[in-house]
Amino acid sequence: MRKNIVIAGPRGRMGSEAVQMVLAEPSFNLVACIDHKASSISSLAEKAIPVYQNPEECFYATEVDVLIDLTVAEASYHHILIALQQNIRCVVGTTGFTNEQLVEMKLVAKENKTGIIIAPNFAIGAILMMHFSKIAARYFPDIEIIEKHHNQKVDAPSGTAIKTAEMIKTVRESKAQGHPDEVEVLKGARGAQDDGIHIHSLRLPGLVAHQEVIFGGEGQTLTIKHDSMNRKSFMEGIKLSVNQVFHIDELVYGLENVLDLD
Amino acid sequence: MRKNIVIAGPRGRMGSEAVQMVLAEPSFNLVACIDHKASSISSLAEKAIPVYQNPEECFYATEVDVLIDLTVAEASYHHILIALQQNIRCVVGTTGFTNEQLVEMKLVAKENKTGIIIAPNFAIGAILMMHFSKIAARYFPDIEIIEKHHNQKVDAPSGTAIKTAEMIKTVRESKAQGHPDEVEVLKGARGAQDDGIHIHSLRLPGLVAHQEVIFGGEGQTLTIKHDSMNRKSFMEGIKLSVNQVFHIDELVYGLENVLDLD
Amino acid sequence: MRKNIVIAGPRGRMGSEAVQMVLAEPSFNLVACIDHKASSISSLAEKAIPVYQNPEECFYATEVDVLIDLTVAEASYHHILIALQQNIRCVVGTTGFTNEQLVEMKLVAKENKTGIIIAPNFAIGAILMMHFSKIAARYFPDIEIIEKHHNQKVDAPSGTAIKTAEMIKTVRESKAQGHPDEVEVLKGARGAQDDGIHIHSLRLPGLVAHQEVIFGGEGQTLTIKHDSMNRKSFMEGIKLSVNQVFHIDELVYGLENVLDLD
Amino acid sequence: MRKNIVIAGPRGRMGSEAVQMVLAEPSFNLVACIDHKASSISSLAEKAIPVYQNPEECFYATEVDVLIDLTVAEASYHHILIALQQNIRCVVGTTGFTNEQLVEMKLVAKENKTGIIIAPNFAIGAILMMHFSKIAARYFPDIEIIEKHHNQKVDAPSGTAIKTAEMIKTVRESKAQGHPDEVEVLKGARGAQDDGIHIHSLRLPGLVAHQEVIFGGEGQTLTIKHDSMNRKSFMEGIKLSVNQVFHIDELVYGLENVLDLD
Repeated sequence: MRKNIVIAGPRGRMGSEAVQMVLAEPSFNLVACIDHKASSISSLAEKAIPVYQNPEECFYATEVDVLIDLTVAEASYHHILIALQQNIRCVVGTTGFTNEQLVEMKLVAKENKTGIIIAPNFAIGAILMMHFSKIAARYFPDIEIIEKHHNQKVDAPSGTAIKTAEMIKTVRESKAQGHPDEVEVLKGARGAQDDGIHIHSLRLPGLVAHQEVIFGGEGQTLTIKHDSMNRKSFMEGIKLSVNQVFHIDELVYGLENVLDLD
Repeated sequence: MRKNIVIAGPRGRMGSEAVQMVLAEPSFNLVACIDHKASSISSLAEKAIPVYQNPEECFYATEVDVLIDLTVAEASYHHILIALQQNIRCVVGTTGFTNEQLVEMKLVAKENKTGIIIAPNFAIGAILMMHFSKIAARYFPDIEIIEKHHNQKVDAPSGTAIKTAEMIKTVRESKAQGHPDEVEVLKGARGAQDDGIHIHSLRLPGLVAHQEVIFGGEGQTLTIKHDSMNRKSFMEGIKLSVNQVFHIDELVYGLENVLDLD
Repeated sequence: MRKNIVIAGPRGRMGSEAVQMVLAEPSFNLVACIDHKASSISSLAEKAIPVYQNPEECFYATEVDVLIDLTVAEASYHHILIALQQNIRCVVGTTGFTNEQLVEMKLVAKENKTGIIIAPNFAIGAILMMHFSKIAARYFPDIEIIEKHHNQKVDAPSGTAIKTAEMIKTVRESKAQGHPDEVEVLKGARGAQDDGIHIHSLRLPGLVAHQEVIFGGEGQTLTIKHDSMNRKSFMEGIKLSVNQVFHIDELVYGLENVLDLD
Repeated sequence: MRKNIVIAGPRGRMGSEAVQMVLAEPSFNLVACIDHKASSISSLAEKAIPVYQNPEECFYATEVDVLIDLTVAEASYHHILIALQQNIRCVVGTTGFTNEQLVEMKLVAKENKTGIIIAPNFAIGAILMMHFSKIAARYFPDIEIIEKHHNQKVDAPSGTAIKTAEMIKTVRESKAQGHPDEVEVLKGARGAQDDGIHIHSLRLPGLVAHQEVIFGGEGQTLTIKHDSMNRKSFMEGIKLSVNQVFHIDELVYGLENVLDLD
């Protein structure tokens, strides 16, 4: 039995990849899209995919199993509440929800016993990198993070690097690394610090999005590295979530809570 | 309260490192050694460390909390049975035990309610690499292992690479990787295979002992890499085991079962 | 003074990138294209770029400084002879010329005192990797090459890996590497060999095109690595060649002979 | 014909490695040592190696082809002048000479038509890394340097990283890298800067001495990496210099001027 899927935000960067992915996956059936600009999406299949501006109308006209929402917080929140009330499961890549919105969505999911997975990052490799780093930090508290991105990126360090350090801090006792008398002959050489964890940001043309977390112990180092080449890297996580959302009846936040990590 | 420790095999490559480690660790107290050649070991402390040829004699003359055994299977088996019967905990790095010996040691440990940890590999980083690889393989079944060693190593692939592939196979369905029409223009280019997992062995002067496991998915790769510089890399694992062996009352095999990996 | 450029093969994978590059470069002026299918190319500039099926007609109708040819050998050879006879410089990325064709083009270039650069690989980084490898091999004769590509690639090793080994062999005495008693426990583990140089080919989804050449010496290793993300990597080499072809009056084969490598 | 060699500073960290190297090399013959503390060095050969406190006495009593000097500047300068005046070739790893001392040694070498090679770094791999970086910087002006050392190192960046940036600056026009509006969310994330070249220093237990220079261009990166495991990495450079010093009759400064790099 194929799963009937609606994609909200089909013209965005993530959304257009998701359209391709759903069309290519034999067990998925793209039945409609939701977009603030109505039109239709020409499919690889025989029929064009209808695009609705109004979610109520979309869900009324169509048999839907799962809503994949890749829009922005305000629109996404609106779509999700309507979907959950009609027992339509949700897989959501939107970021920037307020705490109030999250609490409300959790409540509505529970009341309607309908699964919803919200993940700020659907790249399974990045999620594994952060999870493994948290375990390794228990045994190797000396840690340096190197993240590398193309030179069009404005902020340093990357959000993933900051998140990785945050996660590590939950298991690692605060410590100063390096030699106690360490001297920076050139300022900034030892990078940024978060609770003693050093973070280094490289920006070059030719890079895409890369991060490695290096753990040092006596006589050994352990390195966990993720290289992301393009947005296709998010599609496996979305596909996995569409399948897993059938097995839950509440809100799950974060792809790490969808994966089997034991 | 310092832990009283006896080391069996103090003149071996691992044993001599262990002597240094125990002498340097303030919570440990090296009270004696067991060696087939009697003598004494000059300590950094004020007193020389006595060396016994006979384990019964050693344990009779000395108050012992933990035996660290880094000898060979036959000798180690003999030492362990005597130690366990006197409720002396054991941390063992010996490999090559027969199944019968393992069963017997398990039984004696249980009867005497005394903890014993046997680990073929005490490098925490290598254990983590293998554990993480097993988790990652669930989501990324396309895997290539590269292991690099100095050119004095005779066998290829390394035991760790073979073990890593074995562990991955317990969670990964058998699959052929690469292009279905793949052609080796030069024979051997695609490396060795175990159930479709490719393994590549490099041997060069200047290398020590290194392994990386690379997982490929759409638009991303995840790499887990361990670099071992010298035998000091095993000492953290032995130290951890000496502390953990006080919390168990049976035989535990493999450092992975000593670590907290959740 | 902007350089007037004609591109042959504007709809191919390399050609379409070249069109973008020439349009974006302020010192270049895309005046026409040559394609077996006549049409016109909509430019970012105000005017459409005319496309000619016939090179004579193209060069007759247009003031041309440089022909960039990215077609196939037979067509390219035909275009080049006509261009050189009209003192139009050529930058050529076509592979597969016969020796006779190369000799003839060399002759015609000389007779017409007109520069032509033919390069099978315009990725400057790859050319530097090979050049540096050739120098390093003089001092480090123990060498392993790892090349990594996406799993849609059929042949292994890659052409670049084979070429790198060929270049190294011109300066390195033949030698067997590794331990004299080396044993492959799993067949193929030590990779392919060319004159004792080991080559390992990895194929995974998520990879693009990568190669590293590792040199081992006592207590040290030197690694030269090239990562190619997309065809944009060839455009810098084409741009450089368009500028350099004004300074030569004969045929130069290989980007390494255009670069300043001293 | 074996080369008769004297080593000055045989008990130092470099010197003791050099003693081992000279004893192990069949074409070299260790005839004496110079040390401020007289004694003798037990050789692997049948005879003990005499140790002289006084260089005049040493050179008077012994037939010497080459002096390897691995002491400190003041002592080294004194030894070298005496050696050159007796036409004894010199290979010198001492750093910290004053300009006056360098000028004087150059003069004495020339007057006596005797070769002397002084090199602050005998690791061939490091010299090649710097040389290749200088060439690559012509074509890839966007550069990031990562250097990694054990956490006992006090200063950051390392001397080699600073030297690499200095060398690159001789061929690269000053430029600011990264996005013009770049923001450091955590201070220091983008590392140290020298003329726009970014330098990142990592310090961890388990590391030894490593540096990589990464060059970014459109769609590609080129990486040159040197890993040094121990002082043996310097011995190949000393051995090479002992052989090359017979082919020169003046002072050559820097191993890069001994190597064939074309």
